[in-house]
Amino acid sequence: MINQDTIVALATPSGAGAIAVIRLSGSEAISIADSCFKSVKSTKKLSSQKTHTIHLGHIIDADKTIDEVLVSIFKNPNSYTGEDVVEISCHGSNYIQQEIIQLFLRKGCRMATAGEFTLRAFLKGKLDLSQAEAVADLIASDNEASHKIAMQQMRGGFSSEIAKLREQLLNFASLIELELDFAEEDVEFADRTEFKALIERISFVLKRLIDSFAVGNVIKNGIPVAIVGEPNVGKSTLLNALLNEERAIVSEIAGTTRDTIEDEISIGGIGFRFIDTAGIRETKDVVESIGIKKTFEKIDQAQVVIYLFDSDVISNNSEKSHNVVVEIQKIKNKYPQKPLIILGNKVDKINDSEVANLKSQIPDIQFLSAKTGKGVEELTHSLLDLINTGALRNNETIVTNTRHYDALLKAFEEIQKVKEGLKTGLSGDLLAIDIRQALYHFGEITGEITNDDLLGNIFANFCIGK
Amino acid sequence: MINQDTIVALATPSGAGAIAVIRLSGSEAISIADSCFKSVKSTKKLSSQKTHTIHLGHIIDADKTIDEVLVSIFKNPNSYTGEDVVEISCHGSNYIQQEIIQLFLRKGCRMATAGEFTLRAFLKGKLDLSQAEAVADLIASDNEASHKIAMQQMRGGFSSEIAKLREQLLNFASLIELELDFAEEDVEFADRTEFKALIERISFVLKRLIDSFAVGNVIKNGIPVAIVGEPNVGKSTLLNALLNEERAIVSEIAGTTRDTIEDEISIGGIGFRFIDTAGIRETKDVVESIGIKKTFEKIDQAQVVIYLFDSDVISNNSEKSHNVVVEIQKIKNKYPQKPLIILGNKVDKINDSEVANLKSQIPDIQFLSAKTGKGVEELTHSLLDLINTGALRNNETIVTNTRHYDALLKAFEEIQKVKEGLKTGLSGDLLAIDIRQALYHFGEITGEITNDDLLGNIFANFCIGK
Repeated sequence: MINQDTIVALATPSGAGAIAVIRLSGSEAISIADSCFKSVKSTKKLSSQKTHTIHLGHIIDADKTIDEVLVSIFKNPNSYTGEDVVEISCHGSNYIQQEIIQLFLRKGCRMATAGEFTLRAFLKGKLDLSQAEAVADLIASDNEASHKIAMQQMRGGFSSEIAKLREQLLNFASLIELELDFAEEDVEFADRTEFKALIERISFVLKRLIDSFAVGNVIKNGIPVAIVGEPNVGKSTLLNALLNEERAIVSEIAGTTRDTIEDEISIGGIGFRFIDTAGIRETKDVVESIGIKKTFEKIDQAQVVIYLFDSDVISNNSEKSHNVVVEIQKIKNKYPQKPLIILGNKVDKINDSEVANLKSQIPDIQFLSAKTGKGVEELTHSLLDLINTGALRNNETIVTNTRHYDALLKAFEEIQKVKEGLKTGLSGDLLAIDIRQALYHFGEITGEITNDDLLGNIFANFCIGK
Repeated sequence: MINQDTIVALATPSGAGAIAVIRLSGSEAISIADSCFKSVKSTKKLSSQKTHTIHLGHIIDADKTIDEVLVSIFKNPNSYTGEDVVEISCHGSNYIQQEIIQLFLRKGCRMATAGEFTLRAFLKGKLDLSQAEAVADLIASDNEASHKIAMQQMRGGFSSEIAKLREQLLNFASLIELELDFAEEDVEFADRTEFKALIERISFVLKRLIDSFAVGNVIKNGIPVAIVGEPNVGKSTLLNALLNEERAIVSEIAGTTRDTIEDEISIGGIGFRFIDTAGIRETKDVVESIGIKKTFEKIDQAQVVIYLFDSDVISNNSEKSHNVVVEIQKIKNKYPQKPLIILGNKVDKINDSEVANLKSQIPDIQFLSAKTGKGVEELTHSLLDLINTGALRNNETIVTNTRHYDALLKAFEEIQKVKEGLKTGLSGDLLAIDIRQALYHFGEITGEITNDDLLGNIFANFCIGK
């Protein structure tokens, strides 16, 4: 798995921008850069320059100048990968990026595979495995909560907790295995009371981490919210109103435009994925009844349902008003456990007695005017209240990675066996096997236990250039 | 136009990537960066660090860590803008980019407008105006030819030529204006013979630059090529074959996929824009005849036409074979001046006597097998032969910018007036006016003569962050 060759890749997103950064890593990184760089100010080679310095000059291919660039030098071990690293900051044209990368390929570099820079950082001991995985999560993070978790994990919060428990357990494992060497003398090096206490502590921590996965998963992937409602009840304006509650600058900077109603909006730092549905109006029409079936499929996938209707229309049409009550009841019957928010939109169009009348028919109604913004704040509170964000607020470690979750579950199982073994007075040799198994699963998380397949799988999910 | 405030923008393309770079420029750039940066290794402030150094640390917002970053310091005047510049290289998540930019906005930065970094570089005298414009061209360049021209312009090739002529002309202008002060003494400070020679030289250079615009424009925007042919004659495979002639790595790196037939392909360093058409088969069908009308519209816009047909089908169907001959003649009659390439595709499917037979019917036919690659190289030669790339090969200055072209045309007009004036013995005061006008247009190109509206227009076409 450890390659000593020098790799190259574009580190910034592809496409045209003001600048692009091309990254080289490996023992030849600086000499290869030297072979096609001509400094503007200095006659010194890059290899004679200090680490963490920047040099203005030109990338030259024989007699052709490809670009004026800034070259940054990072000498091993003081770099991201722990190897010599060179970063070329060039003009952000696709053509220039390609020309420079191709030049480096001709000079002896190899195209980096996905995640190979971070893989090298792991192999050089700059990061443990769970920290390396957090790098990918950090890049993918698109809201405050997922960013916070990834950041915490990258800074070692999660793996240091696991590593500490692992060390203590390893200590006991050694003592118990030592007892086996003295089996005929019937000694106990490992204090069983202390050991029981440790196993309880490990059990407790594992349970908490395993439980955090439910929250972590939701935070990482966004909370799916189905919006049930007829056309023209104001689904789009609702989403825009929610988006405006958040800093509008988000979309300004990224230049994003939202034109579908299925969209992810960050509310209070948590990502919510809104899913449009066709409504569930009772009908004999075949086409429409297919629509209703699809609506129910979407509600199945959602964790929260918003039932949205036009207060104005309902107030002036007793048949439609009756339908709304029936439909709400239908959702409640079908999904008794699923949080349901009932929203009367366009409340700006009805008067106080109509409001009172609707309240009497639908006691748990919330009112909203997506147009004036009235009720939007209450809605965001309702949505956030539905999610258990306690752990997040309390800075607790949250597991978001399925691989970690699996390893934790397996470690927990083994620890339960150890616990049971201790209770029933299982012999040391059998106890040692279970402990070793638990240790194995701990090691999988941090990367002490690993193999090429596993590493291949993990880093294949990275982008190239990281 | 000169703002002293500190500006911030994302300098890399938006979207998720391994890293992103955020750029600050202005007198407060370093102190603002200091206020939210905590170095990992050094206790020194960024303001105490040397220029062109890189520092690992964290971007901190109060007690919240936003990201682990590398900060690069460039102290004025040794920076792109000539001001203090800070570049933050952070993890490439949209969320992190936005958080960091928002933090800097709160700390007193202002979002940079499009091209504002380069505008500042121009205002600080780091670049002249035509060089600044070349930066945008360089970023937009997507083939060897447009890259070469932009690079040449950015390195001052074009503007230094203009500046030299301008200086010589200015010299004569001063002498002639001096004569006016001594009008009653009837002296000639400016040697008329020398002056005539200079005007001839300027005329010659201007003419060459003006003429180069036709080539420059084509190179900058790509050469439109209409492909005329029925469905299933192999238009897609033709484009793929042409693309494969070029280094396939282009699409590998950028991760681009080509799924429309209208596409730009770089051949021999020149961009060709291929435009699919519906063919021009004679028909009574209203819908199809609309298609034919559109085909002719596309041919109108194209500079080259490729007429493509299936050799196999034509060889075995005398009616279709007749149609092809008629259609080729129709194109030739309608566009006698437009280069036409007649391509018999799928030549791998017919035998030698069929080849000979087609040649006798259509003398100027070229054969191709997009599938086996036979004839593809000949086709690329045919395409390149159609374009006058002599100037490009000879490293001559080529004008690609419409604004420069306009200024050159106007300068040329004024110079013709001066020439005429010298011939007819025009009085010095009137001569001086025409010279001043010519000088004005020269100055427009390099930016000695400028105004806020003009600058606004030029830099509005830049991307933000450059």
